[in-house]
Amino acid sequence: MRAVKIAALQLALIFLIVLPVHALNVEVASFKLANGMQVVVIPNNRAPVVTHMVWYRVGSADEVSGKSGLAHFLEHLMFKGTTKHPPGEFDRFIDINGGEGNAFTTRDYTAYFQRIASDRLALMMELEADRMQNLVLTDENVLPELSVVREERRERTDNDPSALLSEQIDAAMYTAHPYGKPVIGWMSEVAKLTREDAMAFYRAHYTPANAVLVVAGDVTPEQVKVLAEKYYGVLKNTFTPEPRLRTAEPDPIASRRVTLVDARAASPVMQRSYLAPSYATANGREALALDLLADILGNGTQSRLYKTLVVDQKIAAHAAAWYSGDQLDSGTFGVYGAPNPGADVGKVEAAIDVILADVLTNGVTQKELDRVRNQAIAERVYTLDNQAALARMAGVALTTGLSARSIFDRDIDIEKVTLDDIRQAAEKYIVLKRSVTGILLPETQTQN
Amino acid sequence: MRAVKIAALQLALIFLIVLPVHALNVEVASFKLANGMQVVVIPNNRAPVVTHMVWYRVGSADEVSGKSGLAHFLEHLMFKGTTKHPPGEFDRFIDINGGEGNAFTTRDYTAYFQRIASDRLALMMELEADRMQNLVLTDENVLPELSVVREERRERTDNDPSALLSEQIDAAMYTAHPYGKPVIGWMSEVAKLTREDAMAFYRAHYTPANAVLVVAGDVTPEQVKVLAEKYYGVLKNTFTPEPRLRTAEPDPIASRRVTLVDARAASPVMQRSYLAPSYATANGREALALDLLADILGNGTQSRLYKTLVVDQKIAAHAAAWYSGDQLDSGTFGVYGAPNPGADVGKVEAAIDVILADVLTNGVTQKELDRVRNQAIAERVYTLDNQAALARMAGVALTTGLSARSIFDRDIDIEKVTLDDIRQAAEKYIVLKRSVTGILLPETQTQN
Repeated sequence: MRAVKIAALQLALIFLIVLPVHALNVEVASFKLANGMQVVVIPNNRAPVVTHMVWYRVGSADEVSGKSGLAHFLEHLMFKGTTKHPPGEFDRFIDINGGEGNAFTTRDYTAYFQRIASDRLALMMELEADRMQNLVLTDENVLPELSVVREERRERTDNDPSALLSEQIDAAMYTAHPYGKPVIGWMSEVAKLTREDAMAFYRAHYTPANAVLVVAGDVTPEQVKVLAEKYYGVLKNTFTPEPRLRTAEPDPIASRRVTLVDARAASPVMQRSYLAPSYATANGREALALDLLADILGNGTQSRLYKTLVVDQKIAAHAAAWYSGDQLDSGTFGVYGAPNPGADVGKVEAAIDVILADVLTNGVTQKELDRVRNQAIAERVYTLDNQAALARMAGVALTTGLSARSIFDRDIDIEKVTLDDIRQAAEKYIVLKRSVTGILLPETQTQN
Repeated sequence: MRAVKIAALQLALIFLIVLPVHALNVEVASFKLANGMQVVVIPNNRAPVVTHMVWYRVGSADEVSGKSGLAHFLEHLMFKGTTKHPPGEFDRFIDINGGEGNAFTTRDYTAYFQRIASDRLALMMELEADRMQNLVLTDENVLPELSVVREERRERTDNDPSALLSEQIDAAMYTAHPYGKPVIGWMSEVAKLTREDAMAFYRAHYTPANAVLVVAGDVTPEQVKVLAEKYYGVLKNTFTPEPRLRTAEPDPIASRRVTLVDARAASPVMQRSYLAPSYATANGREALALDLLADILGNGTQSRLYKTLVVDQKIAAHAAAWYSGDQLDSGTFGVYGAPNPGADVGKVEAAIDVILADVLTNGVTQKELDRVRNQAIAERVYTLDNQAALARMAGVALTTGLSARSIFDRDIDIEKVTLDDIRQAAEKYIVLKRSVTGILLPETQTQN
C-alpha cells in the first residue's frame, strides 16, 4: 500500500517535471510533392491505426459575397461520388474496413479525415485523391443535399437562440472582413446555392497545391512518402493558389450591442467578444497572453469570473471567458455570463466589467499565471498524446498561417509569458470599442 | 393696396388648389437607342439652358468585397482624360462655355452632369460619350487622385464623429447586403485601390446599355434624339448588363447598439435607423406612409419629436426623423435626438421611444397627416419647378428600379395615403429588432 502511494507520488512529481519536455517530443516530418501538395507526417506507433486527413486552404471566408455557406455545402457534396466511385461507396469502404470518417468546414479551412487500420492507408489515399479531382455532381444528388444543409442550419442555428446570438455578434463584429458571415451561411443565400456554384468553387479551390495531407499514427515518414507519391503525386495541379486576400477589418472604433429577444430562450445571457489578434497575426507573445488571461478570467471554478459571480456574489449560474486564436486573419477574446433565475443580466454584465477593469488596472497575479500555465501545459500533454488531435493541430496550423512545429512547440513560449505580457495584451485588446456585447432575453418587455 | 391683398389671397387659394394638378404636369419623353442606352427628356423652356446627365447603373453596392470605394474612385478618375481629350480639357471646355459640372456616387448609381447653355448640349454629349469608352488612366494621374480620395475620406468621415457614427450604424445594420459598406470606402481598402482595379470596374460597368441619359431644360425630345443618336448612338455596346444581384439582407432578428466615444464630438447624440423598404421594394403605399410618418414625427418645429423634446420637455437641442427610400434594395427610417448641454442622451432616447410607442398604439391624427401631405406636395411643386432637380429625380428613378413617370406622379399616391397605411407601416417596420441605435459620446466615462 505504502509503496504504491510513494510510487504514485513520485510518478506525480516526475510527471510535473517531465511534462514540458515530453510535450516537446512530437516528431514531425514535413515535405512537398512535386505538384505542390504539402505533406505532414506525425509518427506514433502505439496502436496499429492511422489518422488520414486532407485539408484544403479554403473556408467560408473565401466565399464571394452572396454565396455564404458554399464552402460547407461543397464539403457535404464531396461524398456524392466520382467518376471512379459511385455515390455512397466512399463511406461504405470506410465502414467495411472498420474505419470512421468525417469532414468539417470553418472560416479558413475545409478538412476531410478518416481513422483506420494502418494497413488500409493506401485505400484512404486512393479515395481522397480521387475525389480531389473527379467529383461528379448531378442535380439529383445536389438538390436533396441542399435541403439537408438547410435543415442543419435550422437545427443548429435558427432553433438555438444562443447560436443566433453568436451569429449576430459576429455579424456586428466584422464590418468589412468576411469572418462576419456564418460558416453555415445565411439561409437566404444557402437556399439559392446551385450545383454550378459548388462545381465552380470546387474547381477554384480543390487542387494539390492548395491542399495539405496530414497522416498521424502507426506509419513512418518514408512509408507515407511512397504512398503519397503514388496516390496524390500523380495528380496534376490545376492552378497555382493565389494568396488568400480577405479584406482587412478596419480598426474598431465603436462598441456595439446586440439584443436578441427570443421566447425560446431559457434564461437571459450576456456574451461579449473583443476583436483580437490570432496566433498567426499576433505580435510576440500577445496570443499566448490572451489565451492564459482567458483561463485566469474564465476557465473553470477557480477562475475570477466564476468565483466572483457564481460562488461569491451568487448572481450568475455560469460565467466564463475564452480566447479563439486559431484563425488566419484575426481572433476574438470572449466573456460570458448567465444570471441566476430571477437575477438581472445587467447586474451580471456590470460585475464582469468590474473584474475586467480590475485586470486592466492591476493585472493578474503570478500565482494565477502559474496555475493556468501548468494547467495549459498539462492539458497539452494529453492532447499531444492523442493521434487524431495531433493531426488536427498540424492541419489547423498549416491552413491558418502557422507551421506544425510552431503549434507543437507552443509550450516553450507558454513558459515565457510574463505578467507584463498579459497586462499589455489586456490593455491593448480588452477595450470596449473593440467589442460587441450580445444580450439574449426571453421576454420582450425587458428589451433595449 | 386692397386689390393687391385680395389678389394675393386669391393667388394663395388657387395655389393650394392648383398644386397637385400642377405637380402632375411634368412632361417626360423616354426612349432607347439601338445600343441599349436609355434616354429621358424633360423639356422646360423657361431659360435657354439644359441639364445634361449620364447615369450609370453601378454604385458602391456593386463593388466586390475588399474593393470598397472603387465606384467613387472611378468617378474621380473619369475626369482624367481620354484618347481624344487630354487631362483637364473636360472641365476647361465646360468653363469656357459658361457651364458647370460635377459628378456623384451613391450605393446604387454613379452620375455625371453639366448645366450649360442649350446650344452647347452637343459638346457636352461629345465629351460624355467619349469618356464612356475612351478613358485613359496612367499611374501618373491615378495615384495622386487616390491621395485626393483618401483626404476626402479623412475630411468628410474620419474627422467627423457624427459621420463615423452613421458609418458604424450602417455597418451594423447590414449583415449580408453590401449597403453596409461606406460609399467612400474603408480607408484600409481605399488605400489599396489601383489603376487596374479602376479600369476593370470601368470596363465591367460603363457601357451604353448600362447607362441612362437624362436631358432636362430648353430642348425638345426630337432635338435630343437627333443629338443622342449622333453622339451616344454610335457607341458600340460592349456587354449586356446582368441583373444587379446583391445578396438579400436576412430579416433582422436582433436590435443593435453602437456606441462611439469621440473626444472631438461637441455633444452627445442619439441616432437610430430601422431597416425599411425602399420605394422600389415597398408593397402598396408603404414607402409613402413611412415618408409622411417621418415628416409627422420629425420634420420641422411642428413635428412630434421637436415639439415634445425641444419645445415642451426642453431636454433636447434638436430632434428629427427621416425616411430614405430612394434605393434599389431597401431603405431606412431614422430618428435623431441631440440633448441640451448637460442633459442626458439616455433621457432623450427614452422620450423618443415613448413617442414611437404612442404612434404604434394610437397611430397619428388626420390633422397631422393633412398637414404633412400638403407640405410634401407644396415642396414637390418647387422641386418639380427646378430643371436640375427634375433631371436628378428621373435619373434616381431609373437607376433604383423605378420609372421616371412613377417618381413624378408620386403626388397621386400621396393623396391616397390613409391613417391605416401609416399605422400598418409603423407596426411593420418601426420595430426595435429591425433597428440599430447609435450613441455618440464626447467623454469616455459615460461609455456603455
